[in-house]
Amino acid sequence: MERPIYLDYNATTPIAPEVFEAMAPFLTDHFGNPSSSHPYGKRAAEAVARARGEVAALLGAETDEIVFAGCATEANNLALRGVARALRGKGRHLVTSAVEHPSVLVPCERLRSDGWEVTVLPVDGDGRVDPDELARTIRPDTVLVSIMLANNETGTLQPVAALARIAHAAGTLFHTDAAQAAGKIPVRVDELGIDLLTLAGHKFYAPKGVGALYLRRGTPVEPVLVGAGQEHGLRPGTENTPHLVAMGAAARLAREGLHDLSSQLRSLRDTLHGALLQAIPGLQLNGHLQERLPNTLNLSFPGVSGRDLLAACPGLAASVGSACHEEGDAVSGVLAALGCNSRRARGAVRVSLGRGNDPAQVAAAAQALIGAWNLLAKGSDTR
Amino acid sequence: MERPIYLDYNATTPIAPEVFEAMAPFLTDHFGNPSSSHPYGKRAAEAVARARGEVAALLGAETDEIVFAGCATEANNLALRGVARALRGKGRHLVTSAVEHPSVLVPCERLRSDGWEVTVLPVDGDGRVDPDELARTIRPDTVLVSIMLANNETGTLQPVAALARIAHAAGTLFHTDAAQAAGKIPVRVDELGIDLLTLAGHKFYAPKGVGALYLRRGTPVEPVLVGAGQEHGLRPGTENTPHLVAMGAAARLAREGLHDLSSQLRSLRDTLHGALLQAIPGLQLNGHLQERLPNTLNLSFPGVSGRDLLAACPGLAASVGSACHEEGDAVSGVLAALGCNSRRARGAVRVSLGRGNDPAQVAAAAQALIGAWNLLAKGSDTR
Repeated sequence: MERPIYLDYNATTPIAPEVFEAMAPFLTDHFGNPSSSHPYGKRAAEAVARARGEVAALLGAETDEIVFAGCATEANNLALRGVARALRGKGRHLVTSAVEHPSVLVPCERLRSDGWEVTVLPVDGDGRVDPDELARTIRPDTVLVSIMLANNETGTLQPVAALARIAHAAGTLFHTDAAQAAGKIPVRVDELGIDLLTLAGHKFYAPKGVGALYLRRGTPVEPVLVGAGQEHGLRPGTENTPHLVAMGAAARLAREGLHDLSSQLRSLRDTLHGALLQAIPGLQLNGHLQERLPNTLNLSFPGVSGRDLLAACPGLAASVGSACHEEGDAVSGVLAALGCNSRRARGAVRVSLGRGNDPAQVAAAAQALIGAWNLLAKGSDTR
Repeated sequence: MERPIYLDYNATTPIAPEVFEAMAPFLTDHFGNPSSSHPYGKRAAEAVARARGEVAALLGAETDEIVFAGCATEANNLALRGVARALRGKGRHLVTSAVEHPSVLVPCERLRSDGWEVTVLPVDGDGRVDPDELARTIRPDTVLVSIMLANNETGTLQPVAALARIAHAAGTLFHTDAAQAAGKIPVRVDELGIDLLTLAGHKFYAPKGVGALYLRRGTPVEPVLVGAGQEHGLRPGTENTPHLVAMGAAARLAREGLHDLSSQLRSLRDTLHGALLQAIPGLQLNGHLQERLPNTLNLSFPGVSGRDLLAACPGLAASVGSACHEEGDAVSGVLAALGCNSRRARGAVRVSLGRGNDPAQVAAAAQALIGAWNLLAKGSDTR
């Protein structure tokens, strides 16, 4: 059987062939422990250093500002809880937004249960935080603001540069979870003006199981995981050399191919959106029309459930929201934060495009979704 | 140039060809996010489930008792700090030993700085903990005893089954770090009678960047990293599918080949030890002669530094101790705990053998070490 058309690149991406080629020798020949002082170890350590440089280059950062981690969840834990712990003498208040990933929201809950106070900012109907609201929320004891660069479900971009300026004006550090943004839009730490930034390798064609935290020089942070001295003691444990090498190669690929890939995906996405709009009256976009990742299309189909719609399209692999919430029937917290009613949230489908997609696939996807909607919506009319 | 003979399998192992073969399709074709409900995701989730079963089988455990992690350091953090947090209402005292890996000792230090009390048991001249001493140390508020199964530097085995019985008699949970033991000696959770056990994939021919924690059903533990619901919420973050598959394949390999590999390595090691003993008067073994990993040989060479000796043997890749402490000239904390004086500790070299070694390599290693020692020791006589 032919495999479904993959339209779920926000959940995870395949490893790019160039990335696999770069990492493969570190799965076979070059297996040393980067901490060993013999040639096997040195070879591995050099490769890790090069990879760190590539990740830094993607962000316009310095090499020593990159801390590798086992996943973006770990990097988010390190950012939030590491800064909170380092600055616990200064204050115990943090600010985040209602549309963050669980790997930001749950560390905030943990901090709350440990005595910190957390303000969760609302978003508007497009999913954006209001900078004025942030300005009103920051207090002298606010130690960190964490607001994502791009939302995983809707693709909506936050005005991070403006938000970071407000935080800095109040003497507060700023973290952004850029897990969904890197490789899709330019992510430059100086343009954004942030202090900490999270990356997820598997969202831009590196393998699952590697993340990184950008940490502006001098940013106070204590480790969450503790042990030996790897990653300057901020993330102990023997380095996952092949995955770090892969993330470096993926960063290079993203840096070099970003412009072309972005326009290509935006064009495919808008073609799909146009075709669906024409055929499905009442179709609604979730997220911001312009300020959005070029690859992401979150749509609410009228009168049907997104889950049923996708079940009726076995030739497509898309999702009803974040992969982290695939089980269960709960309405997406992100769409609820945008003010979607339960009917609209229930009808949502997320299509997220990537390097492997082409116009023929997009045409097939449009046809399948329209066909399935016609069947289901008609069914629901006569029920 | 030919590569040095690799004699540092306790630092890390190459990925076994069978393991690479098992994981490779998950780096190329089967790239889905295990949390996605479409076929790409299901395929990945099934592979993760099978891998979990293989790891459980290696330990004689149930599949749902295995929690995957990004490395053994993370698993040790989860064991120690997860149990301490879950039982903080019961008591705030832990017991460990002086020869543990930093990924146990540093979490203990973190707990100490957060208000817990930690007793560090001494070891005898062979590196073993005295069960009677543990019995005298446990108190009503002791929530966890953590003592490793096999030491990374000396290979000395602890009497874990006896120690666990003592802990249980006092109503205390028992954790063992089996990172160095798995794949070298039988590790069966019921024979050991422990409640938690740590594994490191890269110590038994899986890649670096994957670990696991065995968690006996019903053991109270809270997550250290928090986020979405992966690994029953105990280790959130998108699963590193290829590495989990690899760890499953390595576990199968270890289960099936353990007996033969152990005898083969023991024979090679004892041949090497014998050859060196014959040629080098005053050579001392560090660790227990019998109760020791079959692959590990930690020797103190008289009158020389281990570092200089290895530098004079460029054809060998061995180490002076743990890879986690390769930098710097500090004496090994493990050897200090055994009561080695600084002269003896300075002369220490760790040879750790593995699947790739053969009698010719061992003969070459003996010749190189003896030749280098003769040169260096003579030099130091006339200095």
